[in-house]
Amino acid sequence: MEFRIEKDTMGEVKVPSNKLWGAQTERSRNNFKIGPSGSMPLEIVYGFAYLKKAAAFTNCELGVLSEEKRDLIGKVCDEILAGKHDDQFPLVIWQTGSGTQSNMNVNEVIANRAHQIAGKKIGEGEKTLQPNDDVNKSQSSNDTFPTGMHIAAYKKLLEVTIPGVKQLHKTLDAKAKEYNNVVKIGRTHLMDATPLTLGQEFSGYAAQLKFGLKALENTLPHLSQLALGGTAVGTGINTPKGYDVNVAANIAKFTGFPFITAENKFEALAAHDAIVESHGALKQLAVALNKIANDIRMLASGPRSGIGEISIPANEPGSSIMPGKVNPTQCEALTMVCAQVIGNDVAITVGGMQGHYELNVFKPVMAANFLQSAQLIGDACNSFDEHCAQGITPNYEVIKKQLNNSLMLVTALNPKIGYYKAAEIANTAHENGTTLKEEAVKLGYLTEEEFDAWVKPENMVGNI
Amino acid sequence: MEFRIEKDTMGEVKVPSNKLWGAQTERSRNNFKIGPSGSMPLEIVYGFAYLKKAAAFTNCELGVLSEEKRDLIGKVCDEILAGKHDDQFPLVIWQTGSGTQSNMNVNEVIANRAHQIAGKKIGEGEKTLQPNDDVNKSQSSNDTFPTGMHIAAYKKLLEVTIPGVKQLHKTLDAKAKEYNNVVKIGRTHLMDATPLTLGQEFSGYAAQLKFGLKALENTLPHLSQLALGGTAVGTGINTPKGYDVNVAANIAKFTGFPFITAENKFEALAAHDAIVESHGALKQLAVALNKIANDIRMLASGPRSGIGEISIPANEPGSSIMPGKVNPTQCEALTMVCAQVIGNDVAITVGGMQGHYELNVFKPVMAANFLQSAQLIGDACNSFDEHCAQGITPNYEVIKKQLNNSLMLVTALNPKIGYYKAAEIANTAHENGTTLKEEAVKLGYLTEEEFDAWVKPENMVGNI
Amino acid sequence: MEFRIEKDTMGEVKVPSNKLWGAQTERSRNNFKIGPSGSMPLEIVYGFAYLKKAAAFTNCELGVLSEEKRDLIGKVCDEILAGKHDDQFPLVIWQTGSGTQSNMNVNEVIANRAHQIAGKKIGEGEKTLQPNDDVNKSQSSNDTFPTGMHIAAYKKLLEVTIPGVKQLHKTLDAKAKEYNNVVKIGRTHLMDATPLTLGQEFSGYAAQLKFGLKALENTLPHLSQLALGGTAVGTGINTPKGYDVNVAANIAKFTGFPFITAENKFEALAAHDAIVESHGALKQLAVALNKIANDIRMLASGPRSGIGEISIPANEPGSSIMPGKVNPTQCEALTMVCAQVIGNDVAITVGGMQGHYELNVFKPVMAANFLQSAQLIGDACNSFDEHCAQGITPNYEVIKKQLNNSLMLVTALNPKIGYYKAAEIANTAHENGTTLKEEAVKLGYLTEEEFDAWVKPENMVGNI
Amino acid sequence: MEFRIEKDTMGEVKVPSNKLWGAQTERSRNNFKIGPSGSMPLEIVYGFAYLKKAAAFTNCELGVLSEEKRDLIGKVCDEILAGKHDDQFPLVIWQTGSGTQSNMNVNEVIANRAHQIAGKKIGEGEKTLQPNDDVNKSQSSNDTFPTGMHIAAYKKLLEVTIPGVKQLHKTLDAKAKEYNNVVKIGRTHLMDATPLTLGQEFSGYAAQLKFGLKALENTLPHLSQLALGGTAVGTGINTPKGYDVNVAANIAKFTGFPFITAENKFEALAAHDAIVESHGALKQLAVALNKIANDIRMLASGPRSGIGEISIPANEPGSSIMPGKVNPTQCEALTMVCAQVIGNDVAITVGGMQGHYELNVFKPVMAANFLQSAQLIGDACNSFDEHCAQGITPNYEVIKKQLNNSLMLVTALNPKIGYYKAAEIANTAHENGTTLKEEAVKLGYLTEEEFDAWVKPENMVGNI
Repeated sequence: MEFRIEKDTMGEVKVPSNKLWGAQTERSRNNFKIGPSGSMPLEIVYGFAYLKKAAAFTNCELGVLSEEKRDLIGKVCDEILAGKHDDQFPLVIWQTGSGTQSNMNVNEVIANRAHQIAGKKIGEGEKTLQPNDDVNKSQSSNDTFPTGMHIAAYKKLLEVTIPGVKQLHKTLDAKAKEYNNVVKIGRTHLMDATPLTLGQEFSGYAAQLKFGLKALENTLPHLSQLALGGTAVGTGINTPKGYDVNVAANIAKFTGFPFITAENKFEALAAHDAIVESHGALKQLAVALNKIANDIRMLASGPRSGIGEISIPANEPGSSIMPGKVNPTQCEALTMVCAQVIGNDVAITVGGMQGHYELNVFKPVMAANFLQSAQLIGDACNSFDEHCAQGITPNYEVIKKQLNNSLMLVTALNPKIGYYKAAEIANTAHENGTTLKEEAVKLGYLTEEEFDAWVKPENMVGNI
Repeated sequence: MEFRIEKDTMGEVKVPSNKLWGAQTERSRNNFKIGPSGSMPLEIVYGFAYLKKAAAFTNCELGVLSEEKRDLIGKVCDEILAGKHDDQFPLVIWQTGSGTQSNMNVNEVIANRAHQIAGKKIGEGEKTLQPNDDVNKSQSSNDTFPTGMHIAAYKKLLEVTIPGVKQLHKTLDAKAKEYNNVVKIGRTHLMDATPLTLGQEFSGYAAQLKFGLKALENTLPHLSQLALGGTAVGTGINTPKGYDVNVAANIAKFTGFPFITAENKFEALAAHDAIVESHGALKQLAVALNKIANDIRMLASGPRSGIGEISIPANEPGSSIMPGKVNPTQCEALTMVCAQVIGNDVAITVGGMQGHYELNVFKPVMAANFLQSAQLIGDACNSFDEHCAQGITPNYEVIKKQLNNSLMLVTALNPKIGYYKAAEIANTAHENGTTLKEEAVKLGYLTEEEFDAWVKPENMVGNI
Repeated sequence: MEFRIEKDTMGEVKVPSNKLWGAQTERSRNNFKIGPSGSMPLEIVYGFAYLKKAAAFTNCELGVLSEEKRDLIGKVCDEILAGKHDDQFPLVIWQTGSGTQSNMNVNEVIANRAHQIAGKKIGEGEKTLQPNDDVNKSQSSNDTFPTGMHIAAYKKLLEVTIPGVKQLHKTLDAKAKEYNNVVKIGRTHLMDATPLTLGQEFSGYAAQLKFGLKALENTLPHLSQLALGGTAVGTGINTPKGYDVNVAANIAKFTGFPFITAENKFEALAAHDAIVESHGALKQLAVALNKIANDIRMLASGPRSGIGEISIPANEPGSSIMPGKVNPTQCEALTMVCAQVIGNDVAITVGGMQGHYELNVFKPVMAANFLQSAQLIGDACNSFDEHCAQGITPNYEVIKKQLNNSLMLVTALNPKIGYYKAAEIANTAHENGTTLKEEAVKLGYLTEEEFDAWVKPENMVGNI
Repeated sequence: MEFRIEKDTMGEVKVPSNKLWGAQTERSRNNFKIGPSGSMPLEIVYGFAYLKKAAAFTNCELGVLSEEKRDLIGKVCDEILAGKHDDQFPLVIWQTGSGTQSNMNVNEVIANRAHQIAGKKIGEGEKTLQPNDDVNKSQSSNDTFPTGMHIAAYKKLLEVTIPGVKQLHKTLDAKAKEYNNVVKIGRTHLMDATPLTLGQEFSGYAAQLKFGLKALENTLPHLSQLALGGTAVGTGINTPKGYDVNVAANIAKFTGFPFITAENKFEALAAHDAIVESHGALKQLAVALNKIANDIRMLASGPRSGIGEISIPANEPGSSIMPGKVNPTQCEALTMVCAQVIGNDVAITVGGMQGHYELNVFKPVMAANFLQSAQLIGDACNSFDEHCAQGITPNYEVIKKQLNNSLMLVTALNPKIGYYKAAEIANTAHENGTTLKEEAVKLGYLTEEEFDAWVKPENMVGNI
């Protein structure tokens, strides 16, 4: 491999000739061989591209950067956002906890690529742009990384997570309406209980997702606050007046999302409670989705020796040894995602709680876990929706049979004969393997006609 | 000990004569000897007292309960709320996951106590009130327990947690203002960084708590929704028309909090995402408080070989072996509370994710963890506020000395001479153990006068 | 209330006259009003009683304490261990993180009670014993608290946890043997699968507990190492030569457990990885118990519209509204305990990871969570064993019917006709609602006789 | 793109012509678009390659597979293990929870590649090997996936984790010995305490890692047990006699690790407590490493306004805005890894606790989290060792100055003048900003000569 010499304040470093990055990126590559290379999420890099461009424009507006430099920076950022330099960001999550090296990676790539655009060869002639003085102007890693992190997180929630959850909510809500009159046995403690309709059951799932979405949306205002302008410790040292508000406005313009400058920059650097807060809502969604997916696989269990009240699509052979087996694989993928998100929540909590003085240095691990959770929930909801939820159909015969067998229909008699006598009827029918009606009449607590009039499953499901 | 015979649908049980509870409570006492007795939080019992009274009033309003019975139930509930029967609730958290036995404990105590109030002896004569048919009328454990849980949780947040956090926020905010001009060295990565003021540092803490309070308040609407009226599976079987809305209104009236009926009763029984949601905010507060308490003990460390920029009150001898030692004990109590809350969050998550069909049967464990967290955060904030935060004072000499020593003041030179030359100055001063000014002049990058004009810590802290 | 004056190095404090504690306990009571009073587990106090007595004996053996003082200390410790002073330890978990105040609470109670035993009135005359110089001789909070914590934890594991788990293992193992020939349908992905025996299924549960016990036992050697003798920072300052080894030997003698002195005292004060390690095994047991309890309630679900392959004891009425309902309440109590233990594991992890320099100051929260988990697992295993596991019985008819219905018996044909044809048979039978045999013959892949010879559930369960 | 038609029991699927995989892999690709493609760890694929080869050899030894087929399978497995087919495994973690589709991916690749090796074109002519009947012979996904998971996990621990931790332990242990006589101030509660040596401090770190390694090694026997031979539900249906023991022996031979057949196959399929158990030890290591890394960055903090007792290597510029700043970046990478591992532990716990009946269907998420943790700990220990720990040097001057300043040297006087007088000396010196000696003499408690004889830091650190 061929190399060129790059320099930083610590001296010279050999960098592969065909790469755009510089000395600090190369140092980091060598110093942090932890896990697979390039694990720093590209979404963070793109977040940086937005903010570097916005910083250049704001610096120019405020008179501290030339239009030429602004345009060069803007052009490279656009290239990065177009995915043209994805292979120029080889660093890992497990680097410095401020993400300084990823900030410098972006600064170096922009500076070197600008040099190329200016028609020069990297490493030759005076640098067209200085990574620190020009590209990083009015910035620090300490405010850029959390800004890139918020941009990436917000975008992911709006573009992947929320649409995915909404789509699944829509399907579950439609099922709730479609099956609103399908009376079935209820189950509490996994045991037979009074009836409800299949639609009512699904309405509970839909409600969980609706509440989860609301909880997630409640967290967006905090997440929309950007640290940029706080620079090194939150004071905004080396930024021109008005910079923080304007740069957030430019980011909002470039991304199309309502970002604003953080109301307290010290909090925005030293704590990442906004990430903790939003991920708390993702965890709540995981809790909800786990309940839903688990219920659906139990309801669909069988085909002959399970609950079997619904059918779900058979998407693939289920077993490498048991021929003809079909499994609730989408439920499994979704519940595995839930387990991951719940674990990620703890990783984020542990990172978030350990900030020191003016800086939290768990930024990369918090960002990476957040983005994974947000992506997985969105994707898994879509997958579950398309390959499972939409195809759910009731097994009417099974539903009817189980409903009519139920001893818990006796509950309808409480207001008529009291809980104690009703219990006696149910217990006797259970012991004798008979029907409620038989025992009710035999015990002399009511007549057959009364039983038929009072014990109607369709009257036991409230207003539907 | 003397006993009387109590009965339920399973038969007879011997109950201590001097106790108000009945057969089902006694069964539970014997069947669940897990951990210390009486661990079910009294707050839950009081929540039940509110709802039992509200149910009685609503049942009466809707014509299904007599005024006599209503008044008897109401009277006993008032006694319970006055703390007169605290020793009548011996059950543990680790019982049935629906809390049925605690519901029956309340039903039985109310029925037996009403019998006494009616001038009779427990166990003699016809029961004045039936535990199931009268006290539990229009109710099920499945909707009462989550209702009691929400009442207890909401009250605890409003009466303990939020006031505690607000009080600490107020103190930190006042400190932020008081010390707004105390310029000190900043620290990032635990290393010397550019200056900020002590007030700015504390403003970050105050901001964290403000965001945490907002996050917590965002969760209150979900928590204000009550399951009552859903009865066994959410359909409202055996409730009179209009019951759910009215009973919530009565609970709101009796408690003084804005409770409403749950918009989806199936969700309200089968999932406890409202508990997951609110506790997520408590966990965020724990993350924030851990950062704050940890910073304060580091800033106060010493007295001679630590950071020592602030002093905190010396409340007690710190060591049983080292004479004269004083420790940041309030910080320690608070961070231990944070560890507990973070663990409780996982317990609640694990419980919340495992609902089955129409019922989540992790209600008691979720409620107990929630109430503990809410109490501990409120109490610990008050304790930390009174015994530590209010007494914080700056050590001006230490602050000044450390500020003036700092090599990171060189950052102010970036816009003047560029990052690279500034780095050279700092590195040289570090190696030689000299001052920035000496090296700056010696390297010929600027004059002494320029240095004095450009490197002013008080100009490096932004608009204060 | 009447008070007397007690003193410590900070000055005078008013203490209730009828209490044995002194100034530092009283300060702590007033300074840490966090959660219910007296939350510091009594097991820790008893652990202290063992170690205070052992220290006194060792100090005497090594010539630094008189026999009179030794005997006085020993006598009070014996009284504490006999439960005579349980109400003299009012402090909370949420105090200083070294537990200094609980150490002093014990020191003060011992000193004052010894004064009484010596025939004097507390607060009058020269102190018979000095809390710091005599009772705490050769000790520091920093080594006593972790010692007390290890004693309490070890005892709890040996006396409660392990016996409880072993008892449940014994029952499950016996069930595994008893039902070793009861062939039933298997279920994977909650879906019908090839057969196994009920005994085999239970053997898996028993194996989980056996592995869990082994994992727990693996952690005991680390837990048996005691910090005592490290004093303030691990160096053993102010201890006589040979003290650490001897005091551990005395603790071993007094407790009957094989405690030894820690091989590295710095680790023993600054980290509590032994607690993390042992609780990791408790968490593994929680994972196992959750699986087992969940399976059992699913297998017992019904009575008419569930799986219903086994029956579990009906211990109490299951519902306050649904007459005759019986629920798997012991499974619910056990799974709630599992959720708690899993949460406690995170609390312990968060505490354990945050030691600073020579001391971890999350000792009380770690100890309290550990002791709760250890108690709950032991108690819940006993409760589950007695009130559920022992009473499990197979429902032979249900088991037989579900077995014979199963389409997955087709797996036996793989070696005869290949996976693909076998799948065709199963799929066709599923679509047509017919039997495997019918379709196998109709498709012409084998004769009825071959089917009967090859598809025998009892031959599909391996060597039993 | 060009396609060919592949078939499975559900029908035809179009597969890219240039890919070796078949119908089921392609179905899974399309059905599970969750997160980045190919996320299933390659280590699992290699684990499968070992076991498929071992199964082929064992099947041949036991007379149920021809030598030709055995050799073909073995050859492809060797190619896979040589990394020649890494791009043939495009599936994700978030698929069916049994990993069936990844098992089939391997089966299909082996079958198709064998067809090529046999000189034929994929998709043409009769299949040389059947994926299910030949490659998967005597296997099920349900026993292969956990076997592949154990192989991958065990290898990773032995090849990456343990060597990494051992290397760091070696360095810390060497530092402990090297600096065994460097007396320094101790710190408890972050406050000045009695002295110890720098070597003693490091010996605590080394001890933590030693205990962590022991804890990890304790878990290996369980992890060495392989599910293979259990097939579909643990009964070993469709395996020849002796297969389970022999196939484990072959895996042991091929991998060089002491694998054995699982003593209970039902446990081995339905629970993954071995993964929970081993990862519990990884979490313990994370707890230990977090403490160590945190201490080191605090000890190295400064350069001028921190603790500054040690220096760590300056590996890269620390700040994009603050020139000359050097940060403890390796500590940060390591503590971020710890946060991740602690989160992963919860993900694994949540997956492990939710097995149902004969199968746990959280296998892929458990495996992926485990492998990530094991890799990250090993890599991060190596990185931390090479780029930080090895380069740690004491700052003797700082150490000396802080030691001599310390008020806690007064502790040495306890045995001479008692705790109370010693406290008076320390408190007075603290208030007056004087030395202990001055105040001791002024208070008249001892002479200057006595002070010099009794208060010698080098005598306060025990036997070194």
